[in-house]
This record gives sequence, C-alpha cells and structure tokens, in this order.
Amino acid sequence: MRLTIRSGPQPMNQTSLKDRLLLSTLPDEERESGRRLLAALGLVEGKLKQVEEELESRTRSAVPTIALIGDYLVEGGGKRIRPALLLLCARLLGYQGRRDVLYATVIEFIHTATLVHDDIIDLAETRRGRASVNQRWGNELTVLFGDHLYMKAMEIALDEGDLRVLKLLSDVTLAMTEGEIIGAERRGSIDISLTDYLDIVRRKTALLFGASCRIPSYLLEEGDAYAEDLWDFGLALGIAFQLQDDLLDYTATQKDLGKPVLSDLREGKLTLPLILSLPKVTRAERKLIETVVHEKGFTSVPAEKLLEIVDRTRSLAVAREMIDKYGEEATQAAMRLPAVDSRDALLLAAQYAASRRK
Amino acid sequence: MRLTIRSGPQPMNQTSLKDRLLLSTLPDEERESGRRLLAALGLVEGKLKQVEEELESRTRSAVPTIALIGDYLVEGGGKRIRPALLLLCARLLGYQGRRDVLYATVIEFIHTATLVHDDIIDLAETRRGRASVNQRWGNELTVLFGDHLYMKAMEIALDEGDLRVLKLLSDVTLAMTEGEIIGAERRGSIDISLTDYLDIVRRKTALLFGASCRIPSYLLEEGDAYAEDLWDFGLALGIAFQLQDDLLDYTATQKDLGKPVLSDLREGKLTLPLILSLPKVTRAERKLIETVVHEKGFTSVPAEKLLEIVDRTRSLAVAREMIDKYGEEATQAAMRLPAVDSRDALLLAAQYAASRRK
Repeated sequence: MRLTIRSGPQPMNQTSLKDRLLLSTLPDEERESGRRLLAALGLVEGKLKQVEEELESRTRSAVPTIALIGDYLVEGGGKRIRPALLLLCARLLGYQGRRDVLYATVIEFIHTATLVHDDIIDLAETRRGRASVNQRWGNELTVLFGDHLYMKAMEIALDEGDLRVLKLLSDVTLAMTEGEIIGAERRGSIDISLTDYLDIVRRKTALLFGASCRIPSYLLEEGDAYAEDLWDFGLALGIAFQLQDDLLDYTATQKDLGKPVLSDLREGKLTLPLILSLPKVTRAERKLIETVVHEKGFTSVPAEKLLEIVDRTRSLAVAREMIDKYGEEATQAAMRLPAVDSRDALLLAAQYAASRRK
Repeated sequence: MRLTIRSGPQPMNQTSLKDRLLLSTLPDEERESGRRLLAALGLVEGKLKQVEEELESRTRSAVPTIALIGDYLVEGGGKRIRPALLLLCARLLGYQGRRDVLYATVIEFIHTATLVHDDIIDLAETRRGRASVNQRWGNELTVLFGDHLYMKAMEIALDEGDLRVLKLLSDVTLAMTEGEIIGAERRGSIDISLTDYLDIVRRKTALLFGASCRIPSYLLEEGDAYAEDLWDFGLALGIAFQLQDDLLDYTATQKDLGKPVLSDLREGKLTLPLILSLPKVTRAERKLIETVVHEKGFTSVPAEKLLEIVDRTRSLAVAREMIDKYGEEATQAAMRLPAVDSRDALLLAAQYAASRRK
C-alpha cells in the first residue's frame, strides 16, 4: 500500500460573524468535554501504563548518555495521545493480545523522534535561547538521540514482523519528514497557499494519527473491514487537532499554553489564521505580515498589528469552521465503527480535538 | 539474529622498530595494489553504474529542497566502497538478479545518512567554519536530509520484503547510532581505553561493512553456507579500513587527505595512535594530550609536541601492526570463500584497506 496524501479542500467562504471574542465563550462546555474524555480514557489506562513501562525498559541502557533518552521520554511525559488512540482502536475491534501495547510504543518512539529532531536548531535560533532537548544536550547528541528513537521504533516493529505495518510506518515517517522539509522550505516566507498548508499539516501530524488508528486493523482478521474507517478517523482527527493547535497559538494565553502566543510567527511560520487572511489584506498589511515572518518576530511590527488583521478579516471564525468540519468528518468516520464503549471515547476525542483550549 | 558486538583484542605488545619514517616507504608497492584493486572493481562496474542510477532516481523529488539531497549524493560522489563490496560478494556467490543493486543502494543511503547527521554541529563548531552539508543548508535541513535518507533506505529494503535483511540492517544501524553516541560521550576526554575505541570503530564503521558483505548470502539459498565468512570478512575489513583512516590522520599530508592532518584531535577525538601512547607517557605528556583534546585544537600545545609523543612511544608502528592483523583476518576469511574472480578483488580490498595512503 502506498499512502496517498490527499490534498486539502478549497478555502471556504467567510460566512459567519463569529470572531475571536466568540471563541472565548463556552468554557464550561469545553471543560466538561475534556473531563468526559479523560474518564473515557480510563478504558485503556492499564494498557497505557504498559506502554510507559515499554518506553522505559526499551530505552534503558548501559551507556549513560543513551539512558538519558529514557529519562527524557518518561519525565517529559507528553500526552500520549497517539498511543491512547491506538489502544482505543484495538479495544474497539475486540483485540485481546499485547501487540497493541508494542505498536503504541513504536508510535510514541516515532513521535518523540520527530519532536527531538525538531529541536535541532541553527545558529540564529540558538541566540534566542529556545528551551529544548537541544539546549540541554547540544545539537550533536540531539540528532543522535532522535536517530536512536527512530531505530528503536523500527526494532520493535521488526520484532513483530508484520510487513504491512512496517510499510505503513515507513510510508508515514517518510511523508512526515518530507512534510518537515517542505515546512522548513516555506519558513520565513508568506508564499504558502491553504492547500500547501493543509498538505504540511496532513504530513506532519495527521498521518501518524491515521497510522495509530489503522494499525489495530492488522492485529486481527476481522480488522480488515474497518481499516479505511479507522484511517479516515485518524486523519481527520489529526488535522482537527493540528489546526486547533495553530488556532490556539493566536487565541490562547501564555498561561494556558505554557508558551508565548504567536510562537509560530516567531519561528517564521505562517499558519491557518494568517493564511486565511492573506487573500483579504491590503498591500500594506501584506507587507507587515511579510516583515514579521521574515524577521521571525515582532522587531519592527508589533504583534497587535497582526492580531488586528486576523480580526478584521474574520479569519479566526473561518478557521474555527474548518476545524469543526474536520471534527465532524472524524465523528462521521467513528460512527461507521462498531458501537462499543471505546467508540464513545473516539467520539469524545474528535469533539475535544476540535474544541480544546490548550 | 541479534548482532553481538564483539569486543576487541587486548593491546598487543610493542615489538617492532618500525616507526613513522618507515611508513613513508614502499610507495610503489602501495600504488600498484591500488591499481590492481581498481582493475578488479571492473568486475562490478556495470552494477555500480546501476547503483548510481538508483541513488539518483530514488532521490528525485518534486520538492526542490529534497531534490538537493540527490544532487549532494551524486555530486558528492564518494568512493562507494560499501556498494562495491556488496556487489562483489553477490557475484562471488553467483547471484544473477537485480536485488544486489537495490541493497547496495540501501547501504549507500544508510552510509550517507550517517555522514550527513555527522555534520550536525554545535554552536562551538560553527565558529570553526567547518565545511559540511551543514554549512550549506543549516542544521535544520541537514537533520531532515539525514532522516530522509534513512527512511528511503528503509523504504527500498521493505519493498524487497526480506525480514532477515531488515533485521540485520536495523541491528546494524542501531548499533551504529549507539557507537556515535558513545563516541560523542568520549569527545574532549582522554578517558578511552583501547577496548572502548575498538568497540566504537566496530560500531561506527565495521558493522556496515559486515552487513554489506553478508546481505548477498540472503539472496540465494546456497548463500547460507557463506554467511558467517562474509560477515567476518566485512567486519575485519571495516576495522582495518577505519584504523588505517585514523592512522593516516597522523601520517598523511594535507594534500593527500584533502583535509588537515590531526583533524580528529581538532575535534577532541582521541584515536588509535595516541590511545596506544597513553599507557607509556609521562604525567606531563598526559597533561599535554588532555589539553589538546579538551581545547579541541592546538591552542596552547603545538601539534609537533603530540607527534613527538606518538613517535617516542612507537605507537604508529604498533598501530601499523594492528591494522595488518585485521587485514590478515579479512584475508583469511576471504580464503574460506569460493575461489572465483571476485574473491581476488576482496583479497585486494583487504590488502588495500590496510595499506592505503588516502
């Protein structure tokens, strides 16, 4: 199987009056959906613990520096979203064995490897004092740590010996790396269409979500019938999750996110809100956006200027609608899956991914 | 199969009167052995061309930045030692198909990936103006290029679908990365024993030579009988090759090597000659070595001082003997293989690896 990276939908028309202010309403409802999702994750709590144990034991090493990777993985915590999805989908299909735990470990290794390599930075960035794996261990070890994590993932998946899963993981990680390269290529430039942006989102985030959900279909014979629905669910969920992440960079406060707002812009990355704005801005506004992205920060243009542009063009509302659309797509795919307890968790995940505030 | 990383032999006694001056003799003989090796490589010239074509076509991409990788691989040239070994060993076993070309491509992708990631550098190094992939494209793209090459390798190997080869490659690349990490851990320190050093050499260089030679044994049923001999040959050859490389850093001129002599020391890396010297040096000399390795260069201690130490302790002669021993081990392993034309090439390769001057 070769993955087809589906190209995204066309930009939708701006239809709504919702705006950034509207996004700050409904906190109770959102809090409630988060709480219900956490409860639903209880279904795979025992399995998630086993994943933690695997992550720890597989990175144990006599080489002190390698053992640090394990500490980083376990201390660093992470939300373990992808392992949880894989375990929920395995449960949904009635899978009884332990291979779901191993593949969930593989997925988390791959995810962490991409995060670690994402921390490799250039001379320019090191001056910004970015806190990262890199800052702790330097670029040289950081690249090797990432390589090691990729290879550990490969090692476990090979032990399992299912060539279909290996091929899926190989296609996905290759497309992910390509997504990173395409993203790096566009960094510092405003020359990025909505279609390009969605392609990057699909590659960098959605495909691994898709793989997490699809892998369980290979674990038992009956799984085949649900392979495509699981894949569709994971992809749509992943896109909703990432678009929401990019939206939060514009709407959330530093306290909620644990990072400065507009951090993507500070890295020269144009994301959904401003990409939606671009076709509607004046030439002067376009110049302002260009300057911020090029300068990788708000040196000559204050952040407020850009928030005003996004506000005036109602891009946050349009972004919100797009995210809801992908959330809805995930929900519909989940509805085609067996109606068991873990499906409710998937439905809640779809709702949460599209509405979360941090 | 799990690879056992054999630990190296104990340091041998210093027995000979040969010294650095002696190493500069016999240039005609060495030149002759190089010429004969080149002629022997003619056996796989056609296949090597096919490998070049694969390297080029597999890195062709619509993404401009990814296409650069292909240019780098093809322009960069490289000696293609590992592909040549794989092709020679396949020929030796009488293999007729095209899978040797594909696996040779895989091996070269892996080798290039390690080279590219080796170019990821820290702030300190960038100030030294090191010419590298990194300097051309920056750390960020360099790490992604390496990842991409690893994943391309995996993709081709998966298409071939032989789990034994995949497992071998996975074990080898994992051990290689560990070798790099262990090496990075020791950088800047003189706390490295001969055993540790040989373990790093085995991991960083010899295992991929071993894999290159062993893979053909999986290509045809009769290959099994020679799997171990091919592996032994490749490992011994790889060690001889790397030890010679490390020795040349002390004995060759900048013109021959195309890089400054003592470049390992300039990176804070202690290699064979000085490791052999350490047990024989005075406390004051030890301090000098420590300073150079720590300072990553000859800031307070002139290079001549270290060459004197190596000379006085006759470490170059001992190193020379060790290399000959590994060359001999490779030769003996090759003698257990079928006596056909490509075996002569392997024998010449063993001779050349241990005696080459660049």
